Amino acid sequence: MSRIITVAAAQLGPNQKADSRAAIVGRMIALMEEAHGKGATFIVYPELALTTFFPRWYAEDRAEMDQWFERAMPGPDTQPLFDRARTLGMAMSFGYAELTPEGRHFNTSILVDRSGRIVAKYRKIHLPGHVDYDPERSHQHLEKRYFEPGDLGFPVWEFEGGRVGMAICNDRRWPETYRVMGLQGVEMVVLGFNTPSANSQRASESMADRMFHHRLSCQAGAYQNATFVVAVAKAGTEDGHHLTGGTLVVDPNGRLLGELDHEADGVLVVACDLDETRFGKETIFDFARHRRVEHYGLILERTGPGAPLGRPEQPA
Amino acid sequence: MSRIITVAAAQLGPNQKADSRAAIVGRMIALMEEAHGKGATFIVYPELALTTFFPRWYAEDRAEMDQWFERAMPGPDTQPLFDRARTLGMAMSFGYAELTPEGRHFNTSILVDRSGRIVAKYRKIHLPGHVDYDPERSHQHLEKRYFEPGDLGFPVWEFEGGRVGMAICNDRRWPETYRVMGLQGVEMVVLGFNTPSANSQRASESMADRMFHHRLSCQAGAYQNATFVVAVAKAGTEDGHHLTGGTLVVDPNGRLLGELDHEADGVLVVACDLDETRFGKETIFDFARHRRVEHYGLILERTGPGAPLGRPEQPA
Repeated sequence: MSRIITVAAAQLGPNQKADSRAAIVGRMIALMEEAHGKGATFIVYPELALTTFFPRWYAEDRAEMDQWFERAMPGPDTQPLFDRARTLGMAMSFGYAELTPEGRHFNTSILVDRSGRIVAKYRKIHLPGHVDYDPERSHQHLEKRYFEPGDLGFPVWEFEGGRVGMAICNDRRWPETYRVMGLQGVEMVVLGFNTPSANSQRASESMADRMFHHRLSCQAGAYQNATFVVAVAKAGTEDGHHLTGGTLVVDPNGRLLGELDHEADGVLVVACDLDETRFGKETIFDFARHRRVEHYGLILERTGPGAPLGRPEQPA
Repeated sequence: MSRIITVAAAQLGPNQKADSRAAIVGRMIALMEEAHGKGATFIVYPELALTTFFPRWYAEDRAEMDQWFERAMPGPDTQPLFDRARTLGMAMSFGYAELTPEGRHFNTSILVDRSGRIVAKYRKIHLPGHVDYDPERSHQHLEKRYFEPGDLGFPVWEFEGGRVGMAICNDRRWPETYRVMGLQGVEMVVLGFNTPSANSQRASESMADRMFHHRLSCQAGAYQNATFVVAVAKAGTEDGHHLTGGTLVVDPNGRLLGELDHEADGVLVVACDLDETRFGKETIFDFARHRRVEHYGLILERTGPGAPLGRPEQPA
């Protein structure tokens, strides 16, 4: 079996509040056809691909937000996407707001194989933002209000001939995200994001700063775990709020293989040779030889920071 | 107490095998005087500052290497450095090869306060390289032969009015290094390095690649833990083997505040306002609110990579 995955990072431009699911799915299908034409066999769409980034709005009654959630996957609006993927023989990943039969809410992404079968699910673990309305912020970021933290860990799956894992948006800033997958031999991490171009708590932070942090996090995670990272934006101005672009693919050396330079719908197609992950995994990041877990205890013992452990040293 | 540490990253050019400790200490004192003249109150020298980077040589009998180790700190050769630091009122950190009274060998660094007292010790945990002679490599990298892995963890100390931690060279590539210190509220990580400009196992890797990985690792560690990182090279050609430069200071946003552009002795002096670490620690990297340790178990459970944990998902 070939060890090359030709992946399409399928950026979406803004989804307005007024846009129907059907219209958005239509754009996703158009991107899929473009990606297929360029030789891709695996297409990755952003976080919350089917809707606007609704956590920017406050609702006293969170049930008002249930309109943005999917009760079934595929459902009537998304079935055409699954159907087109199956006829094109295209594997895919996308993010959506999940409302379970038990009434639980997650920020979710899935892997769908070439036959249209959902083979993997991930629920976002590192929810940014806050629970209650915060008048101090320039805009709200209420992910902690509308979602529970994910309960499925960071699994890696055998998929498309390689080891593939998922993350969502803010997860990419946390080295634990990549490391837990690195310890399962991950070769490609796919992640979508919706990143406001303004920091709601620091007006002086520029969009260049935000893009720098995005790239830095993806590139470090790729290098330090010798994995490809495919990061896909929902970009542009949604209902008056601007989201960054920055859809990109990083190689296992941490190098950018490509990046979209616009904020509209578009695909970035890159052939990723998974065997390129081997050198890093077998040398500088040969975890079995080099990691010293006996000194990592604090990573699990503490959630937040605590007292310094340093004790005064006596001269030898 | 002021929350500004004016730090000098004191790069050393090459130490040849034939150079005496006294001559090298003389150069370190000259750098200290230059740093003092530029307003620094804390000077950081590289890993193995007192000698050449001897792990590039193979010795069947490792006792031949004991000539490069210090049996006392300070010892006769290093006492003048401590004396000058005390008279200038300068705190310092440097790395050296430590041979304990019990005959144990470590790659060590220390913090010395303004009175010349050693107040902290760190022993390198992530030793790169190999134990036995490897004819496949373009050069040897025998740290695993000549040193034991550090046994003191990654403590953080109250030092110079802030929370300061240490790492050494290859430690900087491992996110666990910074995270364990981040969980003690670290505000400044100081680290020295000796990085060969060639990858002994991949001739095609350029020095630009090596410098990219160096910066990427330091910048990601700084950003993801909202800490300053001060990284100091021993640089240039030692006994025919070239080491990269790249002495730099990174701010808690991951931005480079300065970098030396040469491979000789020199100081980079930067005033670091430790209160700049607060924003990151209180918002996006407020660990207590955002970390989800229940999903990080593999980081301790596995040293090397194991089987993927993903299980096939049933469509909802």
